[in-house]
Formats: sequence, C-alpha cells, structure tokens
Amino acid sequence: MTTIVLIGAGNVASHLAPALQKNGYKIIQIYSRTKKSAQLLGEKLKIDYTEKIQAIKQQAQIYLFAVSDKAIEPVLQKMPQNKQALYLHTGGSMPMNIFKQYVTHFGVLYPLQTFSKNRKVNLTQVPFFVEANKPENLVVIKKIAEKLSNICIELSSDDRKYLHLAAVFACNFVNHLYHISQQVLSEKKIDFSVLHPLIQETAQKALENNPADVQTGPAVRYDTNIIEKQLDLLKNTPQYAQIYEQISKSIHFIQKKKE
Amino acid sequence: MTTIVLIGAGNVASHLAPALQKNGYKIIQIYSRTKKSAQLLGEKLKIDYTEKIQAIKQQAQIYLFAVSDKAIEPVLQKMPQNKQALYLHTGGSMPMNIFKQYVTHFGVLYPLQTFSKNRKVNLTQVPFFVEANKPENLVVIKKIAEKLSNICIELSSDDRKYLHLAAVFACNFVNHLYHISQQVLSEKKIDFSVLHPLIQETAQKALENNPADVQTGPAVRYDTNIIEKQLDLLKNTPQYAQIYEQISKSIHFIQKKKE
Repeated sequence: MTTIVLIGAGNVASHLAPALQKNGYKIIQIYSRTKKSAQLLGEKLKIDYTEKIQAIKQQAQIYLFAVSDKAIEPVLQKMPQNKQALYLHTGGSMPMNIFKQYVTHFGVLYPLQTFSKNRKVNLTQVPFFVEANKPENLVVIKKIAEKLSNICIELSSDDRKYLHLAAVFACNFVNHLYHISQQVLSEKKIDFSVLHPLIQETAQKALENNPADVQTGPAVRYDTNIIEKQLDLLKNTPQYAQIYEQISKSIHFIQKKKE
Repeated sequence: MTTIVLIGAGNVASHLAPALQKNGYKIIQIYSRTKKSAQLLGEKLKIDYTEKIQAIKQQAQIYLFAVSDKAIEPVLQKMPQNKQALYLHTGGSMPMNIFKQYVTHFGVLYPLQTFSKNRKVNLTQVPFFVEANKPENLVVIKKIAEKLSNICIELSSDDRKYLHLAAVFACNFVNHLYHISQQVLSEKKIDFSVLHPLIQETAQKALENNPADVQTGPAVRYDTNIIEKQLDLLKNTPQYAQIYEQISKSIHFIQKKKE
C-alpha cells in the first residue's frame, strides 16, 4: 500500500484525502501549521496529525502538498527530506521546479475545480492535470489521478499557468459578478433567487456553445442609452461601475472584430 | 380567444410566441422590420406576418412588443393605434411609461432569461416580472404570465431597472468572462471543455450559498505574487488585464470589509 503524508488540511486536502483513502492509498499523517485544521481532518479520517514541521514523518512514499503556493517552500525547507520519496503539489500556478533544489522525485497533481469544505464534489468528473520530473514518476502520478478521476491530462508548468488564469476568470471572477448582482438586487430588496434560472442557463449555454457566439446584452451593440443609465445606477459603488465599463468595452471590442 | 399582434421576431419573440399559442392565445400577426425574421417565425407558427408598420392590424386585443428598447417608440409612433387594446413590452430597462403618451392601456411583461433562437428554454421556470398602468390591466398581464410560468412577480419600472442591471452582471458579463477564459486556453491549445466542470460547480455553488461567502482565488488574500504573474500573462491583451485588475481589487475590497 502506497503511503502518503498530506501537507495541508484546507479545502483541497479535505477533498483529496478521503478519495485517496477509498482508492487504496494509506495517508499516514496530516500536517497543517494550524493545529485545529490538522486535528479536524485527522480525527475525521482517523489519521495521525501534527502542526510541527519537524514532526513530519520521514518514511512516506509520497508527500502531497495541498497548501497555498506561498506555503510550499517554507515547509519544504524545514521538513525532514527523503531522497526516495515522491513530492507532489496540487497548485495551478506554481511551477513543478519549486521542488528541484530540495528533492529528487517530484511532480504536480492539479485538480481543476473549486473546493469548499462543506460541499461534496464528484472527483471522478474533475480534470486532473499531471506533470513529473522523470517518466517513472509520471507513471505513479498518472496512476493516482486515474484512480481519483476519469479525466487525467499531462500538462507542462508553463501551460498550467494559463489554465489556472483561465480558471480564475471562469470561477473566481464569475463568482464575484454573482456577488455584485446580488448586491444590486439587495438594494431593492429583491431576492437573489430570481436570478437562479438565468445563472444556470448562462452556464449551460457556455458549455454547449462558443461563448463569443452567444454573447447578448446592451454591450454587444454598445447601446450607450442603456449603458449610461446603468452606470448611473452604480454611481455609489465606483468599483462596480469600473468593472461594468471595462467589461462592456471589452464585449463591444470583440463584437466589432467579429463584424 | 385573446388576440395578439406580436411586434418583433427576435430571440424573445420566438420563445414567447409558441408558448402563447400553446396556452390559448391567438397571435394574429407578427411584425418585424426585418422581413426575413418576420417570415421565418410567421411561417414556422403559421401566423400572418408583415414588415410594414402601416400594415399592422388594428383590431388586436394585445400588442406585445418584443423588440430592442430603442425600437419601441419609433414603431409606436407609426403604427395604427387602438384605444381599447393593451400594449405590453418585454424589456428589462425600459420604463412602462414609454407607452403613456400614445395609448390608454399598457404594461410590462418581462421574462428574466437569456434567449437564443436555437436553444430550448423551459419558460415555466423563468420568472416573469409584471407591471400595469391600471389594476384591470394588471389582471390581464398576470394571467398571461401565470399561464406561461410558475413564477410571476409584480415589480415597478424603477426596481426593474436594477433587476436588469443585476442580470447584465450575472449573465452578459459572466459570459464574457467565459469567453476570456476560452481565449486564454486557446493560446495554449487547451480545449475549453476542461473548464466545464468548474463552470458548472461555480454556478451551482452560487445557487446554494451567498456568493460572497464562497469567494475563492488569489484575489481574496490579494496574493500579489500570483496576481502580478497572471497580469503578465495578459500583457498582450490589455483590455483583459484591466478587467483582471479591477475585479481582483473589488474582490479584495469586499474581503477586507468582511474581516
């Protein structure tokens, strides 16, 4: 049974850990600098846990980092190092070579999804992007990805940066636009739920079409009459007005290029 | 049987028309300034059609405008007017009183959804927002909305403006972000479909939570390291870089207020 030390107990770690257990991997320890997070996940999954870097076990076959980009190197510098083990991280933007000066076997296992602790995600439908410093390591990483998911794709660190950027637009930024629309409605005490069918249909449409081909709204024809009135409704929230203006211009710019 | 003249043969008109027919309304004519659109929809639904404003029939009980905001008044000025008939429009931003100086009975029937000609939409799940200049007209409009949909809500012109603005963010602008993410991926020849599970989960999460509570990504903690690197990836598309910067700042601004 392959043994894993899991570095991190946040959103990504708490989704990957039970899936790894179910698929025959033995997580022998969870490390988190936040004792409470380590304890919560450790107790839930009946796994040893620690918040002390020096207490990280040395005999694991895989060290899986599911922490923020910034946290990888500080932990790597202080933890006990193991020349035989495979070191993996799960980040979108971090190059694989972050590991290079510290360890011998390393790679990346990046699940492209938004994870929250209290939401179930069907990992089998989540695309996993993998990369390794040696062919034999790629075999091991692919095996993990293919056990967890139906979609496993090899991708370089450079391409992964673009993938992560695209995900920031399609997920993090989209969510912020949902937030703005909720704020606009709440001013008039209209419940956000009236937008639910629109949000679902907008997402669904993008899955079945080229988004540029199904673009609608006042910005497409740059209807200055509506655009100016809507900007006026946003005059008390200049940060939202700026977003409105920038996106409208960008939509119109694309539209003009198409014509 | 209530008789309707439909003004417009675009996305909204082509979704409403068959639903009205199925629910016992008799569309006696379709007008569109584009002959081809009028003909296409008219022939499909076996309804008389015209592209001549003066040929619009005078004896209908309802004149339903499903055209762009700008097009309402020019048609209204030139068409034969009917003091007994009810005049409705389907727009989000246009006040009801656009009709005031021309006709006696009027109101609004606004379906909050994104309509494309080639996509089926389940109208029964689409919220319809209604408004009328007289209580007896409201009864008629509500009856139409309740036949077409399970969700019928009375809303003033002023509140409807905000609703439409919210919809622009949650639909039109969200779609543009999907477009940007697709463009970013296409530079690296990565298929847009890898983002599908993320797009679906992001939408689903917003339906089940307060979007501000589930905001994730580098902008939340304003991770300047990732933000600067990602801005650099966008250096050849300054309009996307500006959108990236504005939205990141706005996400962080909200986050700081929460803390």
